[in-house]
Amino acid sequence: PEKLSAKVVDIVRTTKKVAEDDPRRIIHGIKVGLAMTVVSLFYYFNPLEDNFGDSTIWAVLSVIVVFEFSVGATLGKGLNRVIATFLASFLGVGIHRLATLTGETGQPILLGLFVFLIAAAATFLRFFPQMKARYDYGLLIFTLTFCLISVSKNGNEEVLDMAIERLSTILMGASTAMITCIFICPVWAGDELHNLVATNIEKLGNFLEGFGGEYLRILGDGQSQGDKTFLQGYKSVLNSKSSEESLANFAKWEPHHGRFMFRHPWKQYLVVGVLARQCAYQIEALNGYLNSEIKTPPEIRSKIQEACTKISSESGKVLKELASAIKNLTLPSLADPHIAHSKVAAKNLKALLKTGLWEDSNVLEMIPAATVAS
Amino acid sequence: PEKLSAKVVDIVRTTKKVAEDDPRRIIHGIKVGLAMTVVSLFYYFNPLEDNFGDSTIWAVLSVIVVFEFSVGATLGKGLNRVIATFLASFLGVGIHRLATLTGETGQPILLGLFVFLIAAAATFLRFFPQMKARYDYGLLIFTLTFCLISVSKNGNEEVLDMAIERLSTILMGASTAMITCIFICPVWAGDELHNLVATNIEKLGNFLEGFGGEYLRILGDGQSQGDKTFLQGYKSVLNSKSSEESLANFAKWEPHHGRFMFRHPWKQYLVVGVLARQCAYQIEALNGYLNSEIKTPPEIRSKIQEACTKISSESGKVLKELASAIKNLTLPSLADPHIAHSKVAAKNLKALLKTGLWEDSNVLEMIPAATVAS
Repeated sequence: PEKLSAKVVDIVRTTKKVAEDDPRRIIHGIKVGLAMTVVSLFYYFNPLEDNFGDSTIWAVLSVIVVFEFSVGATLGKGLNRVIATFLASFLGVGIHRLATLTGETGQPILLGLFVFLIAAAATFLRFFPQMKARYDYGLLIFTLTFCLISVSKNGNEEVLDMAIERLSTILMGASTAMITCIFICPVWAGDELHNLVATNIEKLGNFLEGFGGEYLRILGDGQSQGDKTFLQGYKSVLNSKSSEESLANFAKWEPHHGRFMFRHPWKQYLVVGVLARQCAYQIEALNGYLNSEIKTPPEIRSKIQEACTKISSESGKVLKELASAIKNLTLPSLADPHIAHSKVAAKNLKALLKTGLWEDSNVLEMIPAATVAS
Repeated sequence: PEKLSAKVVDIVRTTKKVAEDDPRRIIHGIKVGLAMTVVSLFYYFNPLEDNFGDSTIWAVLSVIVVFEFSVGATLGKGLNRVIATFLASFLGVGIHRLATLTGETGQPILLGLFVFLIAAAATFLRFFPQMKARYDYGLLIFTLTFCLISVSKNGNEEVLDMAIERLSTILMGASTAMITCIFICPVWAGDELHNLVATNIEKLGNFLEGFGGEYLRILGDGQSQGDKTFLQGYKSVLNSKSSEESLANFAKWEPHHGRFMFRHPWKQYLVVGVLARQCAYQIEALNGYLNSEIKTPPEIRSKIQEACTKISSESGKVLKELASAIKNLTLPSLADPHIAHSKVAAKNLKALLKTGLWEDSNVLEMIPAATVAS
C-alpha cells in the first residue's frame, strides 16, 4: 500500500508538471474531447442514414487522427488526408473498372499487381526528404484508400458511391477537427517557432551577460553566489534543431494569423536557429572554463578583467536586444551601439593579448556570430 | 520542355540518392508492397465472408498503418494497436451496455459524456513524456476504438460481435505487417542505434587524429592539402540527439536478435551519446581555431607543436579504439595505452603552458571526456 500511494503521488506530481509546463495542453484535451463528442453524436443520431449508412464512422476516425496540438500540424494532416483520399479514390475507381474488363481470372492478378506497385512506390517516396516533411501522411492515406477502393468486390456503380461516401465522411471529420482547432484557443506553430527562436537567443544573451562576472569571480575566490540558473539556460538551445524544423514545417500550412502572413518566410527562422546553435556550441566551450582546474595567474587576470567583462556583457546585451527585436518584429536598432561597444572592447582585449595571453580567444568568435545574426 | 527535363533529371537524381544512401529503403518498399498485396487479396477472396463480412478492410488498414522501417517501430505500433483495441473494445462494450439501461433520452447524454471524458483524458495523457515515448499510438487507437464501439447503435449482442470482429481483423493485419517486417530482411532499430553511436565516436576520433597536424599546417603556411572530409564528419554528431532517442525507444520493443538480448540496456547508448555530443561541442570550438584569424607566433608554435599533435592524435586513437570496441562488443583494452600516452602528452603540454601560453587549454578538456566514455 505504501508503494501504491507513492506511485499515486508520483502520478499526481507528473500530471501537475505536464499541465503547468504548458496549460494549453489541458485546453487541447478539452478541444479534442469536444470535437469527438460532436462527431460521435452525429454518428449516433445519423441524420444522413439514407445516404451514407454506417460509413459515418470514417468521420469519427478522421477527427481523432487529424487533430494535433498546433493549427499547422492539424491543417497539414487534414489537407493531406482529404486530398490523398480524393486522388486515391479517382485512381482506385479507374483501376477497379479496368480490372473488371479482364474477367474472372485476370482481375485478381491485375489488382494484386497494382496494389503491390502503388504500395511499394508510395512507401519508397516517403523516404524523400521533401515528401517526408510535408506529405508523409498523405502518401500513407493514398496507399490505404487506393487499396480499399480498387480491391472492393462491389460493382462499378457501387464502388463509385463508396468512394464518394468515404471522401465526404472524411471531409466532414477532418473539417470538424480543423475548425475546432482553429477557432477555439488556437495554438499556432508559427508563433511557437517565433517565440522559441527569440527565447533561445535571449538565453544565450543571459549567459553571456552574466558569464564575465561569474568567471572572474571564480578566478578570484573560487566562490560564486546568487542565482546561477542563467548559466544553464543555454543548454536547451544545443538540441533545438529537431523541434525548430518540425515547427517550421507545420507553420508552412498556417493561414494569415496575428502578425504573420500566409507564406511568412519561416525558413529564415531555421537559418537564425542554426546561428544560435553555433553560438551555443561556443558558449558550451566557454562554460567549460568555469569548471576548469586551470587558473589564470592574478596579474594577468587583473589586466584582462575589464575588457573581458565588457565583451561578454556587451555581446550578451546585443543578443538580448536581437531577441526582443525578433519578438516585437522591429529592427534591432538598439543593438548597434552594443555591437560597437563590444567591438571596441574586443579590440582592446586583442591588443592586450598581443602581449602573449591567449585564453579568451573564443570570446572573439562570439562577436561575428552576434553580428551575423543581426 | 527544358524546364521539364531539368525537373525530371532532378527527380531521377534525388531518387538515386535516396536509394544509394540506404539500399534497404528499396527492400522496405517491396516488403510493404508484398504485405499489402497479401492482405488485399485475402480481402478480395474473403474466405471468412460468413464470419466477418466487409470488416476485413480493417486488416488492410492495419498493415499499412503499422508497417514501419525498423522492426522495433513496427512491433511498437502493432502491439500498441492490438492491445489498445482490445482494452477499448472491452470498455466500449461495457459502457454501451450501461447506456442502453438508461433509456432513449439518457443514452445519448451518457454516451456523449463518456466520449468527451475518455477523449480528453487520453489526449492529455499523450503529453506525458513516458506515455509519448512508448504508448502515443496506443492512446490514439484506444480513444478511436472506444468511440466506435460505445456509440454504435446496434444491440448489445451485435456490439460484442462487432468488437470481436474488429479485434480479430486488426490482429490479422498487424501480425501480417509484423511477420513480414521481422522475417524478410529485418532492419533492427537496436543495430541501427549501436552502429550510430559507434560511428559517431569514430567520427570524433577521425577529427582529433587529423586535427593536430592540420592545425599546425595552417599555422605554418596557411595552406592545407589532401582530403579534409574527416574534419567535417563530426558535424552530424552535434544533432544526433533526436534520432538516438527514437531508435532507443524502438529498440526496447525488439526481441532477442543477433548479439542483442531482449531488454538489452539500450539506455546506456543514450548516456554514451550524450558524452559523444559533449565531446563534439568541444571539437566544434576547436574547429573554430582552424578558421581563426589569430595566429600563434612561430616561436611559441614550435614549442607546443609536439605535445599538441601528440594529444590530439592519441585522444583520436582512444576514441577510435572505443568505437571499434563498441562495434565488436569487446572491452576496449587497446585504448588504455593511448589514454596513458595522451595523458603524458597533456602533462607535458600543461608544463609548457605554465610558462604563459594558454591557447589549447580546451584540448585538455578532451581527455576527461574520452576517459569517462570508456
